[in-house]
Amino acid sequence: MSELAARKDLLDIEDLGLDEIEYVLDNAVPFKDLFQRSVKKVPTLRGKSVLSLFYEPSTRTSSSFEVAAMRLSADVTHFSVSTSSMVKGESLLDTIETLQAMRSDYIVIRHQAAGVPGIVARNTGASVVNAGDGYHAHPTQALLDAFTLREVFPDLEGRRVVIVGDVLHSRVARSVSTLFRKLGIEVAVLGPGSLIPRGRHGFMTRLSDWEETFDWKPDAIYLLRVQLERQEGQFFPGIAEYHRMYGVNSDRLQRIRRLGAWLMHPGPVNRGVEITDEAMQYEKSLVNAQVENGIAVRMAVLHWLKPENAKE
Amino acid sequence: MSELAARKDLLDIEDLGLDEIEYVLDNAVPFKDLFQRSVKKVPTLRGKSVLSLFYEPSTRTSSSFEVAAMRLSADVTHFSVSTSSMVKGESLLDTIETLQAMRSDYIVIRHQAAGVPGIVARNTGASVVNAGDGYHAHPTQALLDAFTLREVFPDLEGRRVVIVGDVLHSRVARSVSTLFRKLGIEVAVLGPGSLIPRGRHGFMTRLSDWEETFDWKPDAIYLLRVQLERQEGQFFPGIAEYHRMYGVNSDRLQRIRRLGAWLMHPGPVNRGVEITDEAMQYEKSLVNAQVENGIAVRMAVLHWLKPENAKE
Amino acid sequence: MSELAARKDLLDIEDLGLDEIEYVLDNAVPFKDLFQRSVKKVPTLRGKSVLSLFYEPSTRTSSSFEVAAMRLSADVTHFSVSTSSMVKGESLLDTIETLQAMRSDYIVIRHQAAGVPGIVARNTGASVVNAGDGYHAHPTQALLDAFTLREVFPDLEGRRVVIVGDVLHSRVARSVSTLFRKLGIEVAVLGPGSLIPRGRHGFMTRLSDWEETFDWKPDAIYLLRVQLERQEGQFFPGIAEYHRMYGVNSDRLQRIRRLGAWLMHPGPVNRGVEITDEAMQYEKSLVNAQVENGIAVRMAVLHWLKPENAKE
Repeated sequence: MSELAARKDLLDIEDLGLDEIEYVLDNAVPFKDLFQRSVKKVPTLRGKSVLSLFYEPSTRTSSSFEVAAMRLSADVTHFSVSTSSMVKGESLLDTIETLQAMRSDYIVIRHQAAGVPGIVARNTGASVVNAGDGYHAHPTQALLDAFTLREVFPDLEGRRVVIVGDVLHSRVARSVSTLFRKLGIEVAVLGPGSLIPRGRHGFMTRLSDWEETFDWKPDAIYLLRVQLERQEGQFFPGIAEYHRMYGVNSDRLQRIRRLGAWLMHPGPVNRGVEITDEAMQYEKSLVNAQVENGIAVRMAVLHWLKPENAKE
Repeated sequence: MSELAARKDLLDIEDLGLDEIEYVLDNAVPFKDLFQRSVKKVPTLRGKSVLSLFYEPSTRTSSSFEVAAMRLSADVTHFSVSTSSMVKGESLLDTIETLQAMRSDYIVIRHQAAGVPGIVARNTGASVVNAGDGYHAHPTQALLDAFTLREVFPDLEGRRVVIVGDVLHSRVARSVSTLFRKLGIEVAVLGPGSLIPRGRHGFMTRLSDWEETFDWKPDAIYLLRVQLERQEGQFFPGIAEYHRMYGVNSDRLQRIRRLGAWLMHPGPVNRGVEITDEAMQYEKSLVNAQVENGIAVRMAVLHWLKPENAKE
Repeated sequence: MSELAARKDLLDIEDLGLDEIEYVLDNAVPFKDLFQRSVKKVPTLRGKSVLSLFYEPSTRTSSSFEVAAMRLSADVTHFSVSTSSMVKGESLLDTIETLQAMRSDYIVIRHQAAGVPGIVARNTGASVVNAGDGYHAHPTQALLDAFTLREVFPDLEGRRVVIVGDVLHSRVARSVSTLFRKLGIEVAVLGPGSLIPRGRHGFMTRLSDWEETFDWKPDAIYLLRVQLERQEGQFFPGIAEYHRMYGVNSDRLQRIRRLGAWLMHPGPVNRGVEITDEAMQYEKSLVNAQVENGIAVRMAVLHWLKPENAKE
């Protein structure tokens, strides 16, 4: 593995070179191997501090980063963001200056507004990891998905993945499709017409229904989580309608099984919406592998980034 | 001490053999001795991870497990369970698969539904400790109570303990009475007729009032916490009525003192309900010893259990 | 540095001798130097436990203590205080006995009632640090402010600081003015007449407006945070009125700049109330230095205090 230029932050998949992507994916392998051992911890980041700052709640992503940091022997502090004390009383700029003054080595941040992790990154010496910002990006999700797919397809070039759901409002879809394309994977999308982006996402094949999807012969089917809280909006059909049109039910599972396609989902799954209980039992589901790989990939990301104040 | 068969989980007192119970109680002794030292920590579980998952809030039990884990040098992660993200959007089964994929070594779980810790245990390689499930069981509470009683009565055989309160709906009563009986302690119950179980709990002597209770000559009186939020129900008398009938007031304290009986309570106490302020000062109260012993006994439990993925 | 008598708790600035104050300030210097290093952690409190108990929410102070404890290698447990389980169902006395039974080495406590940290201190062997109690005291805030001012004025004797705002209800003002006076700093106050204390605070010069304030030639201007939630009260003018009378706007900033005075604020700032966005850019603002120094000074405080159960 050749030497890479040091990188301070991970904000967006678009910033990454192929060598960097492969560096992270390759480095996640030994971290994952670690999980088979009785002691799953390495001293890599001993004495370093990770500040976790989630403006949107997310048990899974937040826990995944926390476990990743702990397995690297870093100290984790949750900077709890209550609507009362922080969002109202204090401007983002002041919060950032506070973070900088606390001199954490790493800041993991999720925010409902696109671009906030970038603003934090430009104003602190800490390495900033974007854990999801608005509709913009969720780069560690994309990296763990690529890692997971590479475990079943060592050569990703030319593989086909269809992303199913509200692609337009999904930072997961945005980061996953960008990364997959960089890795030579063909990406298609299936979802309600009003929720499929046009224009700059023109590289993605648009599929109009499951029939066309099966004909396209995907190697993997990536179901997006339906944001139930958003279904009130005008773009979104009812839950039952969504399930009928785009959900994986037993008929569709049979077709998927015949194709031999893998099933992915960033979690947590809305059973009965994106997928039925029965289909969750599918033997080629990668959902749990995604969770486990999430920790390994986030360890590789934290290990890779170099905070400015770590220069020595 | 003879070698015991390895045990993965602690779910219920009923599962435990007498040799196992004594193993845990004996092992808690040196852990408690540790608390007299300036550094109260041992490297026993260094590099191991404990995932704490409380579906019902409990500052005391949750903190007790956390401190126990830290004093064994384990890493603790709180998997925060908000009604919003977890209970609604994600089935228990999916949560369990996520937990399994995170490969924690220990999972400490409290849940409002009986049996949930058992389901988690069967589906993960982690050692699961039941920190209270519905009306079912609270095994570490029972173990710490036995440990506490053994400190004042080295020989527990033939001792008499009366449990006072809503025995029917109490997982504490259920686990404590089962364990005490295994240790040869005679158990009686005192409480509102509608809240005293019949049938399978037939081994317990039913006492009808304090007069009969004093005549029975208990060595210890174990007050259950009144679940104030449950008093609306038809089974439960008013708070004032409960206090008048079953509370420890100054008259009853005098009788208790004359008997020389010890006083126990799992905490937190509702002063003025189970017991008056004055009676809380009783010199033979074991309430604080129970808190301290809780940490020692939970250290012994974590030290004793063997996660499947720890085989090496 | 001469040897000091051991001190168990830090409850109030008034308790401290000048030698103790200087001991803490001097010891914070090497801790702050540490923050320039790649590894910002020392093993000073390895194996010791800090229990954090915040009855009032405070992300900043709570995080500052947590990071301070972690950089000393101590273990931190948050004893979460929900209105439901703790404030209602359990008396303070019982909580204290629980804390004592848990045998933490350090307890960091914030409470809305003045005097609570003192009650905890008298009833536990742990070292108690008052992180703010009612209108009473906030001693670590005062110490970090003195440390920050000493960085720009190595000789504090005879310096002049004006405190601006609701001095009457501010524990920050109370602790800061007491400490500054002990260090030979002249303290003045500026604020709404109804919010400026009389009587025992007679040592402070009362200034009636900014004009008089500039004539007084302060070396530093210490803005108090306006407690927005308290503005309903009869003492407090409207926000706009407050800003017009006491806020730092561009005109006043020009005068401050001409004076060469430093600007301080305990954070978080209400922009547009105590100070305009523009004035926040002032090159002689110490606000961020206060945050960073807060961690160093709290490390020095934890390092200095001696829990009773640590005698050995």
